[in-house]
Amino acid sequence: MSEADFIARLRAIATDPAARGLADDAAVLGDLVLTHDMIVEGIHFLPDDTPQDVAWKLVAVNMSDLAAKGAAPVGVLVGYSLGDDAWNAAFADGLELALRRFGLLLLGGDTVRVPAGTPRSFGLTAIGRAPAGGAPSRSGAKPGDQIWVTGSIGNAGLGLAMRLGQVDANETCLSAYRRPQPQLTFGQAVVPHVHAMMDVSDGLLIDAQRMAEASGCEIAIMLEAVPLSAALLAVRPDVLDTRLAAATAGDDYQLLFAADPGAAAAIREIAAGLNIAVTPVGHAGVGSGILLTHRARRVALPAHLGFMH
Amino acid sequence: MSEADFIARLRAIATDPAARGLADDAAVLGDLVLTHDMIVEGIHFLPDDTPQDVAWKLVAVNMSDLAAKGAAPVGVLVGYSLGDDAWNAAFADGLELALRRFGLLLLGGDTVRVPAGTPRSFGLTAIGRAPAGGAPSRSGAKPGDQIWVTGSIGNAGLGLAMRLGQVDANETCLSAYRRPQPQLTFGQAVVPHVHAMMDVSDGLLIDAQRMAEASGCEIAIMLEAVPLSAALLAVRPDVLDTRLAAATAGDDYQLLFAADPGAAAAIREIAAGLNIAVTPVGHAGVGSGILLTHRARRVALPAHLGFMH
Repeated sequence: MSEADFIARLRAIATDPAARGLADDAAVLGDLVLTHDMIVEGIHFLPDDTPQDVAWKLVAVNMSDLAAKGAAPVGVLVGYSLGDDAWNAAFADGLELALRRFGLLLLGGDTVRVPAGTPRSFGLTAIGRAPAGGAPSRSGAKPGDQIWVTGSIGNAGLGLAMRLGQVDANETCLSAYRRPQPQLTFGQAVVPHVHAMMDVSDGLLIDAQRMAEASGCEIAIMLEAVPLSAALLAVRPDVLDTRLAAATAGDDYQLLFAADPGAAAAIREIAAGLNIAVTPVGHAGVGSGILLTHRARRVALPAHLGFMH
Repeated sequence: MSEADFIARLRAIATDPAARGLADDAAVLGDLVLTHDMIVEGIHFLPDDTPQDVAWKLVAVNMSDLAAKGAAPVGVLVGYSLGDDAWNAAFADGLELALRRFGLLLLGGDTVRVPAGTPRSFGLTAIGRAPAGGAPSRSGAKPGDQIWVTGSIGNAGLGLAMRLGQVDANETCLSAYRRPQPQLTFGQAVVPHVHAMMDVSDGLLIDAQRMAEASGCEIAIMLEAVPLSAALLAVRPDVLDTRLAAATAGDDYQLLFAADPGAAAAIREIAAGLNIAVTPVGHAGVGSGILLTHRARRVALPAHLGFMH
């Protein structure tokens, strides 16, 4: 049973509406939003990433799922594989910092010893309070909706390349990789205006494809509109390949959302009040899958739409 | 930072009452009970345990925590490290069976790929509904209370020895190791009568010591009263060493609870109605720690009171 078959099997088991078919960022149980993400050394983080950064990422990736549902953070349970003494101490520092930053209660969890040499693996369950009007799903995008993203796309992917010494480093991109900033406040504020919302964790294109599939529509992305940071453009030329790389890199932890064009002014006002960028990058249409253009020319979909793991 | 220091550090962070100081079986958030336990190959299960048994154990150990809080099962989020195709399929079978058995919704989770050769590691977050009168803690035992356990003690520990070929096997003990049966129904029913309750997961003595410490009292255990099954006594003589081994073996997943002696009749009636055994094994007194006797003679505490992991 392949990974895809395994997940299909789990989806067949997860028939309760609270599970949202295991196809959303989180479960919604009553007024609580629940999510569980794991991170594994060598897959989701580098062996020489600092324990503080790993702890931050473990919390932040789960906060990004809450943000996507417009949920307010409540608390976490942590599954921790013990490392050496120095690693444990530094991880605890990073965990405490992240919990404080996001206003999270540490509710419980488990620590386990693993055999020496085992790649580190951590899990975190985050619990949030759903927004009063209900948590948006991925599946509500409608033909005619504008498709928006928060922040900049591709910084973290380039930051990883910088960490690996493949390209000259700058702090903006490195920081986007090391300390992703989930859009919790904006997520909660924008909820009344969105038809669908999810976080961009595996790559803009693959995540947009998931939204299109869940919503039963097509999503057209204009690559020239995808917001790239000055820090990214300082090391990459603004050409199609750069934009495709940014739109298929993972770890952005920005929000991707669909909204009626009539909501654009309200969305921009919310973003301005929080001093964050929001950018329309395309629209939803009748059909299925992703339609990609660059300066009004059709672009073939790349073989990999994002980070598969 | 050692494991003990790491946990002490987390406890210092977990100041909200919902976390119960990370010293209880579960967190209690509003009317929900939340727990997260991990199991690791080579630590909590054997490399050649069947995937079905591993899935059952992953669910059951967390259900035992809910049982200890008198909670009704609601749902789970599963953190799964992908194995080979056959392993995945068999694990899914076992998971589905366990979820059905305990009436659990599969709410969400995460699947990750891990490098080949990595010991398998799984996490599960279980969510339960707290009993109407509130979830009992470990810390409520009072001097004068009777100390009770459900079921038999030591079967799973001997079952593990059978799995390892160290002793002639029988189905009762093997089954206790392979498919622990958390006492959910009894836990919910007995709640109004207990002062303190927890599950016996690491060994009766170490868990009783934890209850004593949390409650600020002494707990005296009469080893001759510890309920041993006929299956265990079929392969071990009823001597002090057998009783010490049973009381310090892990994986029982029985309930340990403290109650006023006046509640004994009610407790026995509940147990009889559910066709399970309950046995008074000692009492709480003024003091601290564990006081061990065997046929009215003081017994020195063994070096290891249970399974430390």
